[in-house]
Amino acid sequence: MSQEKDYGRPTDVRAAEGVERWHDEADVIVVGLGAAGACAAIGAREAGADVLVLERAGGGGGTSANSTGEVYMGGGTPVQLACGFEDSPDEMYRYLMASCGPEPDEPKIRLYADTSVDHFHWLEGLGVPFKRSYYGDGSYIPTDDCLAWSGSELNARYAPHAKPAPRGHSARKEGIEAGAELMRALCAATERSGARIEPNVRVETLVQRRDRTVVGVVARIEGEERLLRARHGVVLCAGGFINNADMVARHAPWLARCKMRLAVDGDDGRGIRMGEGAGGEAIRMDTACIVLPFTVPKKHIQGLMVNAQGQRFINEDAYQSDVGEAALRHQDGQVWLIVDDSFYEVPFPPAEIAGVGETIEELEREVGFPEGTLQQTVAYYNAHAAKGEDPLFHKTAEFLKPLDTPPFAALDYRVEHSLWSVFTMGGLHTSIDGEVLSADGDRIPGLFAAGRTTSGLAAQGYSSGLSLADGTFFGRRAGLAAARRST
Amino acid sequence: MSQEKDYGRPTDVRAAEGVERWHDEADVIVVGLGAAGACAAIGAREAGADVLVLERAGGGGGTSANSTGEVYMGGGTPVQLACGFEDSPDEMYRYLMASCGPEPDEPKIRLYADTSVDHFHWLEGLGVPFKRSYYGDGSYIPTDDCLAWSGSELNARYAPHAKPAPRGHSARKEGIEAGAELMRALCAATERSGARIEPNVRVETLVQRRDRTVVGVVARIEGEERLLRARHGVVLCAGGFINNADMVARHAPWLARCKMRLAVDGDDGRGIRMGEGAGGEAIRMDTACIVLPFTVPKKHIQGLMVNAQGQRFINEDAYQSDVGEAALRHQDGQVWLIVDDSFYEVPFPPAEIAGVGETIEELEREVGFPEGTLQQTVAYYNAHAAKGEDPLFHKTAEFLKPLDTPPFAALDYRVEHSLWSVFTMGGLHTSIDGEVLSADGDRIPGLFAAGRTTSGLAAQGYSSGLSLADGTFFGRRAGLAAARRST
Repeated sequence: MSQEKDYGRPTDVRAAEGVERWHDEADVIVVGLGAAGACAAIGAREAGADVLVLERAGGGGGTSANSTGEVYMGGGTPVQLACGFEDSPDEMYRYLMASCGPEPDEPKIRLYADTSVDHFHWLEGLGVPFKRSYYGDGSYIPTDDCLAWSGSELNARYAPHAKPAPRGHSARKEGIEAGAELMRALCAATERSGARIEPNVRVETLVQRRDRTVVGVVARIEGEERLLRARHGVVLCAGGFINNADMVARHAPWLARCKMRLAVDGDDGRGIRMGEGAGGEAIRMDTACIVLPFTVPKKHIQGLMVNAQGQRFINEDAYQSDVGEAALRHQDGQVWLIVDDSFYEVPFPPAEIAGVGETIEELEREVGFPEGTLQQTVAYYNAHAAKGEDPLFHKTAEFLKPLDTPPFAALDYRVEHSLWSVFTMGGLHTSIDGEVLSADGDRIPGLFAAGRTTSGLAAQGYSSGLSLADGTFFGRRAGLAAARRST
Repeated sequence: MSQEKDYGRPTDVRAAEGVERWHDEADVIVVGLGAAGACAAIGAREAGADVLVLERAGGGGGTSANSTGEVYMGGGTPVQLACGFEDSPDEMYRYLMASCGPEPDEPKIRLYADTSVDHFHWLEGLGVPFKRSYYGDGSYIPTDDCLAWSGSELNARYAPHAKPAPRGHSARKEGIEAGAELMRALCAATERSGARIEPNVRVETLVQRRDRTVVGVVARIEGEERLLRARHGVVLCAGGFINNADMVARHAPWLARCKMRLAVDGDDGRGIRMGEGAGGEAIRMDTACIVLPFTVPKKHIQGLMVNAQGQRFINEDAYQSDVGEAALRHQDGQVWLIVDDSFYEVPFPPAEIAGVGETIEELEREVGFPEGTLQQTVAYYNAHAAKGEDPLFHKTAEFLKPLDTPPFAALDYRVEHSLWSVFTMGGLHTSIDGEVLSADGDRIPGLFAAGRTTSGLAAQGYSSGLSLADGTFFGRRAGLAAARRST
């Protein structure tokens, strides 16, 4: 961590009793101006607080601005209705409870499912543009359309639990700029709200009273240490920890094998560590969103994802992050996609071809699967696919087609050989109001957090858009709660 | 946790500045009298410290006394030599580095491998009896013999990395009493050392100065709150957290599915939470030793362990905790052992028979595996086993025999249906001297920990005896370091 060198130690909390004078103050101080920080600031302003936002980079945006700009919302949003999809809070609740576990944060899921439509209106009211249009599926939408299947709702594992509906809502913008568009709107709304925004400010640690109440931060502004008082509360919205190699090694070392981190420099876990230093507990630190990107073109879902034993291990139509998690954690990241000539095209991102054969036997030999294994797997699959069945993993019939058009190929999706992407999902344990909790479940007075600095709606399972849901919805709530805290 | 009701909150650290008088004091206070606490107390006494041991139960022993009494030691111990096994610190180091990861604690492994023989002599010198005899393998030794293969040393996954040697050293005692015997010896040695031992004392939280130095504990003795000063340090040896349902849900919810917890009431995570409250970081909180007990009789390793798709997923001669971890985390705990009449006998612990068939086809139908899957798996296995090969997982040739003697049966080893056992391995992050570290890697002055209150030698992978190695070896070092800390 080169940037750590000239930084203070985030866990080394400063004693409030020793503070001789505050250089500045506000009712609520927000650390970080990504989606969570923006919504925390706006939320605190809604409650009438005087708000100061401190951003480490030269401007707002954070990882949210580099994201796909997709927010997971449902229960009957105007976009869902306009596009002819039925949904309800209860169906959304059931899907999230089934897919975000084991042991997801039930109170957060209940509240979010119940008020997700309100949240849509709130975001739209802030100026985030959502077109009344349906795209199809995926976590990335190249058009300016809005609605997409961004999770595993249709999947055989979850569809029996909850009536499926698409819930990914992307900000209206073509190409890869939807995240930037979302953050442009949210940063503009933050400015309009009257919150003071200070870029290029590094928050080094928290200031805490002996009774554990957090009363401010130590910041470095233009090289000078500054003590900034927060009359009501501090909200940590400083991202995750995938860019901190030591933290990854301590908590989730396998993630270091993924080549592409969905993160900015700031995702170095300082927010989490500040919270820990003040007595907060970090939980589910092993969890992450691990994306194995093999579904562009979508017809590649017709292929067979196999492990080093030539066995299938998941339905290939599972959401990319389900496939990624299963492949990395359960198959040691050693997986290949078997395709035939009838549907193969160069995928995006590209994948190396590990082997080609006129027969499956030849392909098996070429790649080096144990003799007979891939042949057995394909023969079994083909026999059932011909009948529209997948007795092993129940892949949707739409993608069931015998692999019978030579040549056959194996695409190399081993973690070291392809562009897996990853970000962390573990973080500070928080209440539905963003209050940071200790290992005993007690509130740390005056300390709040939101976004990827926290463990959010999803504990393990993931659907695209849940991180921006965590950030925007629970960010706002954290800001409101901080502003309203009686002191 | 019913016992939590009338307990103080462990994270709610008491301010040293507010202490008006100490009721008692010692150089070193040890919290908990299991293997780690005993060795911490003895270590601190070796360094000349005045030591006070506080044990919550009516007497010493803890989970160690209920264990198999097996300590993982090697590098050429007197027992290894007497039994004709060659070993070296480097081979032991290589095995532990390969099997205890990913990202095991390298400095701990290096030190322990290098000085494990000394540790053997130290334990023996304290009165722990080790017969110069070789038993065979297993984590449980019904005779009074000592040496056993207690890990995956011979396994195809690790043997290429390190020359195998048996390293499980069980205390000399027949039957299930070896753990109790070990703890009788260690508790007696603790008493002889001159440490004061106070049973029935509940430590509620730590006393800490504003500069983060831990200077004592708050204890409840006969219903009264007592402030006990530790001039040099406090050593937390209070076990793991498997008996705390909330902590399990927050950090490793899948563990709650295992029926049998290798633990005493005290394994409720209070030691970990005290350390967190004082600024220590808990790491690898998702890791555990998960034992799927199917290898008694040993010849059952000839069977095929299959998942819900009728597929094998591991070499059946992998260590029981490797099989358990793979089965619970990667196969959702849904596994069966396929046996034939030539080697089946009633296992210990007993397992229900999920189905029986004169043919594999009949068995497959009986249990409800997807049609054709189990037949394919067994046909493939048999064809290669007949040649002494296991191309999929490289099970040792000794256990490779075609399953061809009807009737065939499937033993139900699903986690909800059989006696899986579990204990947690995550805990406070510590240095090789047992110093508790913050999320920034800084020492919390005066605070030490050992045993299952810490993350130890093994981060994820496990071999039997490593917990008692952590407890006894790093417990002693923590006691020594606490005693020697200059104040």
